[in-house]
Amino acid sequence: MSSWLPSLITETPEQGYELAVKLSRVAVKMTQPDDDARSRMRPEYAEDADALIAVSQVVATHFATVAAANSYWR
Amino acid sequence: MSSWLPSLITETPEQGYELAVKLSRVAVKMTQPDDDARSRMRPEYAEDADALIAVSQVVATHFATVAAANSYWR
Amino acid sequence: MSSWLPSLITETPEQGYELAVKLSRVAVKMTQPDDDARSRMRPEYAEDADALIAVSQVVATHFATVAAANSYWR
Amino acid sequence: MSSWLPSLITETPEQGYELAVKLSRVAVKMTQPDDDARSRMRPEYAEDADALIAVSQVVATHFATVAAANSYWR
Amino acid sequence: MSSWLPSLITETPEQGYELAVKLSRVAVKMTQPDDDARSRMRPEYAEDADALIAVSQVVATHFATVAAANSYWR
Amino acid sequence: MSSWLPSLITETPEQGYELAVKLSRVAVKMTQPDDDARSRMRPEYAEDADALIAVSQVVATHFATVAAANSYWR
Repeated sequence: MSSWLPSLITETPEQGYELAVKLSRVAVKMTQPDDDARSRMRPEYAEDADALIAVSQVVATHFATVAAANSYWR
Repeated sequence: MSSWLPSLITETPEQGYELAVKLSRVAVKMTQPDDDARSRMRPEYAEDADALIAVSQVVATHFATVAAANSYWR
Repeated sequence: MSSWLPSLITETPEQGYELAVKLSRVAVKMTQPDDDARSRMRPEYAEDADALIAVSQVVATHFATVAAANSYWR
Repeated sequence: MSSWLPSLITETPEQGYELAVKLSRVAVKMTQPDDDARSRMRPEYAEDADALIAVSQVVATHFATVAAANSYWR
Repeated sequence: MSSWLPSLITETPEQGYELAVKLSRVAVKMTQPDDDARSRMRPEYAEDADALIAVSQVVATHFATVAAANSYWR
Repeated sequence: MSSWLPSLITETPEQGYELAVKLSRVAVKMTQPDDDARSRMRPEYAEDADALIAVSQVVATHFATVAAANSYWR
């Protein structure tokens, strides 16, 4: 069985950022597993600046972790 | 007596993420120990994008800790 | 005189988590020292999902500190 | 002239926590330097669970810094 | 193909701060890819102190990562 | 041309705190560059306990970075 998160290591910073976005979304899916419920919410928060900024905060927190895991791709 | 948190070490990143989700939930249980009260709130926040994003933020903070504990599974 | 916080070192991760919960509560007591005022607020926030998630966020931040202090109990 | 923040080093964890509380308050004073304005706000937020939890979050963030500065008083 | 994030390394702290601002914006674009929708929101949050402070929080989180990546430009 | 952020290194913890306050304000200016718009908002948030606590949170996040950059002025 394949994992949705086999590793925190990525080849590039950009791929690391994409992983951070993925990490931020999985917690939402685990808390609200119903696809239809999440779809109903999407138009609402995608038009809400406060919600978009809050999503960006979660991504920032995960990106810190992924960046550290990759020794900042130095 | 077994502990709900015997260790922060996990075999894989995915298990580490699951532990982060667990860590985020326990504080809620400790603050509101009444199972019925928590069950009443669930439908409310599971349909609320802001609450789901806030949960995702807590998970991100715990995941940073678990990932560091596991040296990022490198 | 005994201290409410003699050390950040705990024997187990679970005790570390309990210390994080304690650390999150003390700041509230220092800002609102009146026991009755805090008791009046309790039923309100204990039924409020947003408040419970916010408490969980504070605990997560303190747990990161306690876990680092204990070298993640490795 | 004496400094309000001569050092991040404290003798005990408890003093470190008190320093974290102080650090969280100074930013408020710098943003709203008028003592009367701050006094008017105090009864309001001291009775507001959400505000108290938010204060506790700021303290947690500063406590992480102070604890690291003191090598966790190990 | 060029990357929007080829590296976290910058020559100066000021450039590091600009990168943190960029990092905070990309997550918003990934969550709301429609340029028009984002433009509609802009006048709203640019006049909202709470939203501006929240943006500043996201930038602070990314700046911590970028600063660590650059060993604080010491 | 001089930079607004030539270095994260400061002589004292107090100067480091002042730098953290500055770092928290620059992101607001970059998001809302219009001086008049920012001036209009100021009386509003300076009387709002929630906004002041949120500002204090941003300062705390930047102070953690500045303190680490200065090896905690040990």
